[in-house]
Amino acid sequence: MTAREKIANAQAEQADRLAGNHGHLVIIGGGEDKQNDMAILKRFVELCGGPSAKIVVITAASAVAAKMWDAYDCAFRDLGVTRHVHLHLMTRHDANDEDLIRDVVDADGIFMTGGDQKRLLAILGGTALDAEMHAALKLRGACIGGTSAGASAMSGHMLAQGRAELHPEKGSVSLGAGLGFLHKVVIDQHFSERQRLSRLLSVVAQNPYLQGIGIDEDTALVVERGVGIEVVGEGAVTIVDGRAMSTNVAEIADHATPELIDVRLHLLPAGSRYALPGADGGDARRSDARRSDARRIPPPLLEFLENITKRNPIS
Amino acid sequence: MTAREKIANAQAEQADRLAGNHGHLVIIGGGEDKQNDMAILKRFVELCGGPSAKIVVITAASAVAAKMWDAYDCAFRDLGVTRHVHLHLMTRHDANDEDLIRDVVDADGIFMTGGDQKRLLAILGGTALDAEMHAALKLRGACIGGTSAGASAMSGHMLAQGRAELHPEKGSVSLGAGLGFLHKVVIDQHFSERQRLSRLLSVVAQNPYLQGIGIDEDTALVVERGVGIEVVGEGAVTIVDGRAMSTNVAEIADHATPELIDVRLHLLPAGSRYALPGADGGDARRSDARRSDARRIPPPLLEFLENITKRNPIS
Repeated sequence: MTAREKIANAQAEQADRLAGNHGHLVIIGGGEDKQNDMAILKRFVELCGGPSAKIVVITAASAVAAKMWDAYDCAFRDLGVTRHVHLHLMTRHDANDEDLIRDVVDADGIFMTGGDQKRLLAILGGTALDAEMHAALKLRGACIGGTSAGASAMSGHMLAQGRAELHPEKGSVSLGAGLGFLHKVVIDQHFSERQRLSRLLSVVAQNPYLQGIGIDEDTALVVERGVGIEVVGEGAVTIVDGRAMSTNVAEIADHATPELIDVRLHLLPAGSRYALPGADGGDARRSDARRSDARRIPPPLLEFLENITKRNPIS
Repeated sequence: MTAREKIANAQAEQADRLAGNHGHLVIIGGGEDKQNDMAILKRFVELCGGPSAKIVVITAASAVAAKMWDAYDCAFRDLGVTRHVHLHLMTRHDANDEDLIRDVVDADGIFMTGGDQKRLLAILGGTALDAEMHAALKLRGACIGGTSAGASAMSGHMLAQGRAELHPEKGSVSLGAGLGFLHKVVIDQHFSERQRLSRLLSVVAQNPYLQGIGIDEDTALVVERGVGIEVVGEGAVTIVDGRAMSTNVAEIADHATPELIDVRLHLLPAGSRYALPGADGGDARRSDARRSDARRIPPPLLEFLENITKRNPIS
């Protein structure tokens, strides 16, 4: 077999493998149930391929990594998973250590715990592990999960920190460079519970091409690349879209409240499912597909859907 | 002078009197400052015509009317007002007693305190006093103020009561018949402080032609009929417009969270001022008119403005 044939073969194999699975993101707003019905973690395991899947747990966001691992070790064990492992990283050096990160290379699922997203990115951003995670999602159709800080870290522009005040406030929120599994969005978590709409509006006011995604506790936005989204758990996902708004944010002083006119708001309660029109596979075709699947998707949501399910290439 | 001449004269006089003043509404989100700079009450007094204005305070919403009156008596006194009086009503009979309500007939301003808007409407709704208040606003260009319950009571469809939960909830809010100074809107107060966006969205989900107006504490939406609006005080006014939304609210069970797609949200911070294009007088012409006055008003806000400043006739 010539080198050219080998490449063609490898490409054909990959195409076969990906035919029904383009990779999933499970973006959790924190506080997901780990002891009772565990709807979200159960769905994550399913999307990884079931209890026989190999799942790597990354605790790098947390300063109490061992405790975090214990909680997920128990939860995944209770869900029948046997091949879950703890990837314990302390430094960027660790995240570049091919030996240490070897479990990621054939992982079916990778889960990032909560903690501090700035810490997570400081350790992971731009490392060999970061690249392996993108390869896992995009070349092998793996499932990437993240909760709380691990959720915020998923977008290219990451909500790094900021106060949640009664009103949106200019300059109150800072962004950082996230992992970039999603683009043109910014993710906030513990959303309704910590009353973070003002914080998310603060980001959108200043960065109008980012659509804000607020995810409640014990709630997950599940993205199947190229196919659609669903909301799993107990709460809702709130989307704020300021692309068409009028605002005076450029003219006002720091810490002042901007005028915002015509922000679009969408609320997707748990149980919502939306498939791209003509999506070519995956969950949207399942026989238990809900009524909402078939429904004509309102244009403002369709645009969001198209962006968030986009199969961005490895960059 | 013939009867016909008399009527023509009276009409001409009224037209003269109204030339620069079509009546104002001062709709306050509760908790307005009554001791320090009193920005909102000061503006109310100004709009009534200054300290020499005759102001009637209606405490009927409150179960502790005397205490309410004391607070406003002090505040208006501190603002130099001398002709403010307490209209103490216990029953509908009182509100229909021409002698008891005679002060309203030539009042320059009428102020409704907080309490319970259902109580207020139960006493006032459809009485001679109700009619006199409409006449005061619409025929004499008087200023009608209301705070908290007194603010909610101003619209035709009144937010009567309802829980403010983490998420909008079908059937969680009930409406009642309000005083009807404004139409096609529903007003909520203590808005940001009591996290009432979900409650307002619950109303809008089920009643999509009502635009929701959420007013923060120590914040007032001032409406000059036929001219424009301004936001006075410390917080902001939030407007939620669901007229173009898609929702499944008709299909879900009571207490479930509806899907809401494409709700328009506007945030107008204190200091915002908007005049109708070509508005023919009043504050918008003042020399201290702010930059926003002259600005082109974005279409979604313009529609709101046109509705809320509409000079509805006496019905």
